[in-house]
Amino acid sequence: MTLNVVPASPSAVLLISCPDRRGLAAAVTDFIFRNNGNILHLDQHVDAQQNVFFMRVEWDLQGFAIERSEILAAFTGQVGEAFAMHCEIHFSDTAPRMAIFVTKESHCLYDILSRVQAGEWRVDVPMLISNHPDLGEIAHKFGVNYRVFAINKENKLKQEQKQIAVLREQEIDFIVLARYMQVLSENFVSQFPNRIINIHHSFLPAFPGGQPYHKAYNRGVKLIGATSHYVTSELDAGPIIEQEVIRINHKDSVEDLIRKGKDVEKLALSRAIRYHLQHQILVYGNKTVIFA
Amino acid sequence: MTLNVVPASPSAVLLISCPDRRGLAAAVTDFIFRNNGNILHLDQHVDAQQNVFFMRVEWDLQGFAIERSEILAAFTGQVGEAFAMHCEIHFSDTAPRMAIFVTKESHCLYDILSRVQAGEWRVDVPMLISNHPDLGEIAHKFGVNYRVFAINKENKLKQEQKQIAVLREQEIDFIVLARYMQVLSENFVSQFPNRIINIHHSFLPAFPGGQPYHKAYNRGVKLIGATSHYVTSELDAGPIIEQEVIRINHKDSVEDLIRKGKDVEKLALSRAIRYHLQHQILVYGNKTVIFA
Amino acid sequence: MTLNVVPASPSAVLLISCPDRRGLAAAVTDFIFRNNGNILHLDQHVDAQQNVFFMRVEWDLQGFAIERSEILAAFTGQVGEAFAMHCEIHFSDTAPRMAIFVTKESHCLYDILSRVQAGEWRVDVPMLISNHPDLGEIAHKFGVNYRVFAINKENKLKQEQKQIAVLREQEIDFIVLARYMQVLSENFVSQFPNRIINIHHSFLPAFPGGQPYHKAYNRGVKLIGATSHYVTSELDAGPIIEQEVIRINHKDSVEDLIRKGKDVEKLALSRAIRYHLQHQILVYGNKTVIFA
Amino acid sequence: MTLNVVPASPSAVLLISCPDRRGLAAAVTDFIFRNNGNILHLDQHVDAQQNVFFMRVEWDLQGFAIERSEILAAFTGQVGEAFAMHCEIHFSDTAPRMAIFVTKESHCLYDILSRVQAGEWRVDVPMLISNHPDLGEIAHKFGVNYRVFAINKENKLKQEQKQIAVLREQEIDFIVLARYMQVLSENFVSQFPNRIINIHHSFLPAFPGGQPYHKAYNRGVKLIGATSHYVTSELDAGPIIEQEVIRINHKDSVEDLIRKGKDVEKLALSRAIRYHLQHQILVYGNKTVIFA
Repeated sequence: MTLNVVPASPSAVLLISCPDRRGLAAAVTDFIFRNNGNILHLDQHVDAQQNVFFMRVEWDLQGFAIERSEILAAFTGQVGEAFAMHCEIHFSDTAPRMAIFVTKESHCLYDILSRVQAGEWRVDVPMLISNHPDLGEIAHKFGVNYRVFAINKENKLKQEQKQIAVLREQEIDFIVLARYMQVLSENFVSQFPNRIINIHHSFLPAFPGGQPYHKAYNRGVKLIGATSHYVTSELDAGPIIEQEVIRINHKDSVEDLIRKGKDVEKLALSRAIRYHLQHQILVYGNKTVIFA
Repeated sequence: MTLNVVPASPSAVLLISCPDRRGLAAAVTDFIFRNNGNILHLDQHVDAQQNVFFMRVEWDLQGFAIERSEILAAFTGQVGEAFAMHCEIHFSDTAPRMAIFVTKESHCLYDILSRVQAGEWRVDVPMLISNHPDLGEIAHKFGVNYRVFAINKENKLKQEQKQIAVLREQEIDFIVLARYMQVLSENFVSQFPNRIINIHHSFLPAFPGGQPYHKAYNRGVKLIGATSHYVTSELDAGPIIEQEVIRINHKDSVEDLIRKGKDVEKLALSRAIRYHLQHQILVYGNKTVIFA
Repeated sequence: MTLNVVPASPSAVLLISCPDRRGLAAAVTDFIFRNNGNILHLDQHVDAQQNVFFMRVEWDLQGFAIERSEILAAFTGQVGEAFAMHCEIHFSDTAPRMAIFVTKESHCLYDILSRVQAGEWRVDVPMLISNHPDLGEIAHKFGVNYRVFAINKENKLKQEQKQIAVLREQEIDFIVLARYMQVLSENFVSQFPNRIINIHHSFLPAFPGGQPYHKAYNRGVKLIGATSHYVTSELDAGPIIEQEVIRINHKDSVEDLIRKGKDVEKLALSRAIRYHLQHQILVYGNKTVIFA
Repeated sequence: MTLNVVPASPSAVLLISCPDRRGLAAAVTDFIFRNNGNILHLDQHVDAQQNVFFMRVEWDLQGFAIERSEILAAFTGQVGEAFAMHCEIHFSDTAPRMAIFVTKESHCLYDILSRVQAGEWRVDVPMLISNHPDLGEIAHKFGVNYRVFAINKENKLKQEQKQIAVLREQEIDFIVLARYMQVLSENFVSQFPNRIINIHHSFLPAFPGGQPYHKAYNRGVKLIGATSHYVTSELDAGPIIEQEVIRINHKDSVEDLIRKGKDVEKLALSRAIRYHLQHQILVYGNKTVIFA
């Protein structure tokens, strides 16, 4: 399944974080201007409590004086090092490669694949990975490779090794856990830092772990939610990307919560994927800056 | 401060809960019909999991065959006992008496008093109780009696005894904790079962206890909320009446969260007060049925 | 494509509207009780301005004394006629037959088909109708018959006649216009009163007609929306079933509005379909009562 | 009534709009850096359709090399003229002077005054103006001067002249129409361009003009809203600042819509006032850029 959205003219996105001090914005924008770049978007944020500066700047590459393969080195040498910047660069005409992990629930998977199919995102989806064969038919419908790795207590680490090998081989950039009902090992997670997006079916930090809708029902809450976040070694505790909620009432059974919750799961997950694909997310500590 | 909304014609509200079985709705509506009542609103709910039946029925008293002081006894004898019903009756032209407890934050207090003043609710507010003198001026503005009971570890139970005495003397029907920064003792709470409404400044069960906005900031959530609930002996764990949320982002400091949160606190609290005043709430277990 | 949700025990749903007067609820519930029905849900509403009474009552058919084919006649004879009721009856184990009309946009179609496939609704989808061949591949993926009726000014009424013939032949109960970019003729609409659900991509009555997102962009609104409604002969003016909105800001181009709007279109349309399938909608005048 | 929030250290806010071209961000940030300013917030936006560049930049004045009274001239000479910029400068320790216009509805007025009293905003409120005496008591409670100018067809322009004279005398910076039930004349509006904020009790452009809740009720919408906007000579057609909505259903009478709508009116208006006070709004054409 391949991308089908090509922007008119390619642009570069530079993501920066560093200790805050005078002259940061001037140094960055001057570098772009001197090299004949036209800024399309510029967002910055200063965390006054932590004294950290964050910036996302996107400029048109047409007529830019530096070859794209040289930009990061040039910027680092002329600006980044002097300010102890952490930098990343991305180009709008490159489609990241996304793997989707699923188990048996189809709603997030359908939502993602139909967005890809309709050209809503610029992304490649070379493969689906599952611990069950159930959703293979959907993968087949959309022409995506479907790999099953059955997981149990005994084989978990071995199976993860095989998954990692396949992901490497397929040059996967990031992973989406679309209601994948397995906890990834610390080793697995460490190989894809800030590159595994999970959807948890509650309004975190309320109801982490299993059966959040049952817990929500028993507590008698009046709103339920969903949270997309980067996966870290601690379950449901990684940096939150997006949250969405929906109102419920006393008439709703657990089954109604599960059904209504699916709609906010799809929204919270698809928005997180888009932010990730647009390089709009900067992670620091256990939080995210979303330049949307 | 007294009520200023008088409905055109008085109505009766009957709140019922009992084990579910055939014929409940027929028995209740037949009783009203036989006595020449015209039903204005009828809501019922069956908790299929617990097999409990709930009903709120409101009818016009004009031409009703039974004196209002006799209705509950008549209904219980003719219908209620046979079905082991728990019943309550209320009349729309009676204004409940509400006491407001505050500490130093004024936003919920202003919101409540301005709604009372504008005649949005049918309620009397004979008094404010506080553990600090700060908001006395606001009480004065609105012509409401303001009583200060300074609380510390040593005098807490004694002061609560005095508060209870005043509340009894003033024939207070229910209490609203409008950001009252003291935990009520189990004894106090037990005297007003399902008649103390608190506003907690988080989306419970996330962030119970102190400083929820600081906790929300540190966790990096993307939505903050407020929860109104009946107070029970366990802190921030009583039956939830209403919840509301508002979106935040990385630009928001803790102070911004506190500021934005005030708006949802006011909404969640004022809606809970209205539901309570309209007799739209049925509590069972640790949950609420809201017939709104 | 056929239904795959079977409820534990079948139930009957009776929808009633009539002039309001004393004894209506008693008469209906007594009929059900006398015939040994156990009420699962009962909702009623009185439009005090128009003096109209509305009721939706659902009861378990297990042990009910009347054959299902006889219920409507029995009820009408014993209760309905006396109160001049307009009545409809439905049974929970019957799957309505839905036809979907599309043009080129796939998002609502995917959303609907994936819900059907996942068993979220009890419905049959025997066919898709389109004025373009583009979405035939999606129909094929889901195993649904896809019929193309190209429409132009000259052939419109003839083509509609053919569509109607196919719909009759397939015993279609109701039609969903999932971004069908043709205005149906008055004749077509009159054949399916309150049985054609459209999704309009604006918050009606703002921006009726063509290009609502362009209009919203030009007006500079801060929220955009979508409206599902029953189709009447007047464009975008039928009874509203559901509306949903999403926040936008100055950064959003028309293309962003179109993209963000799709998410609320899907929500507003799928909720309307569910209400219709659950027989939760009563239309009167140009408005809806939604017993949800 | 005077301000009571003083920020730790004063800052300057520069608002810029001009035709878009290369080097704009670099020129502005370089000016601030050369003069030893530390940027606290920087937001920019390019309207690609109109080719217009917008920027809001806020920096700490501590240690800044230019006297505040000289900054605008210095910036214009060194940067602004070369890029044909339209510029405004504001200082965070100056409290704007706001006049509030009211008629008989108190909810927005209470909301505003209680926020001012609690120190939520940095603003002075020297006076209220009304066409009725009714809300004078509230003004008195909060110690604000209350001026009544009764308006009828005959005296309207004369009375407006007197109002303008008082506003000038009191050095009013901007006006808030907090449910002021009079249409201002074109002459009045022209004297305060983009400095009169109105709250309209509908989701514009739906239901402009009088009785929007009645219109919403009759149309059968499922959400109602409120819109804050700058006043222009065309009724309810000025640049929209903020909109908010709330869900309603068939149970809600017109009176319920009016009551529920008040809560969103308060929110939409208070947010607009805050954006205005923080100098976060740039108007162009008939739209707003909100740098929030």
